[in-house]
Amino acid sequence: MEGEKVVAELLQSPMTLDYILATSAMAEKIKPLTSGISVKEVTEKNYAKISSLSTPPGIAALIKIPETKSFAAAKGRTWALALDGIRDPGNLGTIIRIADWYGIKEIFCSEDCVDLYNPKVLSATMGSFIRVSVVYTDLKKVITVIGLPALAFVMDGQDLNEVSLPYKGLIVIGNESKGISEGLKELCDYKVKITRLGAAESLNAAIATAIACERLVNR
Amino acid sequence: MEGEKVVAELLQSPMTLDYILATSAMAEKIKPLTSGISVKEVTEKNYAKISSLSTPPGIAALIKIPETKSFAAAKGRTWALALDGIRDPGNLGTIIRIADWYGIKEIFCSEDCVDLYNPKVLSATMGSFIRVSVVYTDLKKVITVIGLPALAFVMDGQDLNEVSLPYKGLIVIGNESKGISEGLKELCDYKVKITRLGAAESLNAAIATAIACERLVNR
Repeated sequence: MEGEKVVAELLQSPMTLDYILATSAMAEKIKPLTSGISVKEVTEKNYAKISSLSTPPGIAALIKIPETKSFAAAKGRTWALALDGIRDPGNLGTIIRIADWYGIKEIFCSEDCVDLYNPKVLSATMGSFIRVSVVYTDLKKVITVIGLPALAFVMDGQDLNEVSLPYKGLIVIGNESKGISEGLKELCDYKVKITRLGAAESLNAAIATAIACERLVNR
Repeated sequence: MEGEKVVAELLQSPMTLDYILATSAMAEKIKPLTSGISVKEVTEKNYAKISSLSTPPGIAALIKIPETKSFAAAKGRTWALALDGIRDPGNLGTIIRIADWYGIKEIFCSEDCVDLYNPKVLSATMGSFIRVSVVYTDLKKVITVIGLPALAFVMDGQDLNEVSLPYKGLIVIGNESKGISEGLKELCDYKVKITRLGAAESLNAAIATAIACERLVNR
């Protein structure tokens, strides 16, 4: 991960850092946080060569990918997200950021979702990947054992304004063009749609997630 | 604009089309809609050469950019958007799609917003640019003469849950990193923030717009 802010966040998170690569100016700046971590200094010119950004920030951390967590029933869960086939890296990253904004700690992804460690996903999370657990697993299993009502967001569901909504649950969001897969949809307790007042045919998956969280979690 | 769906929508819209470029199969398919419009046929191979998409759809329309509309006071307006310095094409396109979903007909953009006719903007609208008027102008003037209360979405405003919200207004959204410019913010009647329940520092401009519309327009 590149950038002063995200590296500072990583240093204060439970993530394991292999080492930090930094220009001498950046190494000095981040020094109060780096005790016990190897910091390799590089010249600005060399940093620019390995940077993936057009304005090289001069600092990057190599993080260890945590072991894949498996789904476990947990006490006290209120809201969680289930993502079925989200393929666009920007969408997944933005959804992680939204979850973090609303205090949602857990996202379950179907196995065909884009990988969390895709650089575009990590970058779109704006650092939120540190605080949100993302588990790739069988969503049918999650719905069956999580012990929360599952709310499928679909185009042909009941209007959100006309449903008595639960105060905790699993928000299920489908693929950008195909929506939620049939077998999964059937397992959901609620099939709801976001109220459309105009003419656009659909909303993108991250936008739909934001509206779902605002309506369900923020009340 | 490329693609069967958007070309069909354009043919049924008030937009002026210069001509359509299509493979013979596509020309045949779209024939019921193209009376009076010049359709130039190309081979699939040649179409692929000029296509900007990895899966060339075989049909494109050259549209005439409408004359710049200027801001005019209008009767019966309920909600409109004002965008201050939105630079990311994906964000602007997505915001136009959100406006169309909520039935908002007018977006006012500051002069430094990304251009509507940037191909990435048009593509992200998913066809909604046909139904939403986008005017580039001085937002201070808009706020002064539009005759609607202006609601600035800012990080340090009053929490949306704690404000008595008006039933019509101008939703003002700021630049992705700098927010709403100072002189503009002062002119707004309300300074509000989206309720944060977790730890993410901010939301992207399109996500903030969606939440603002859901809270203000859908009730």
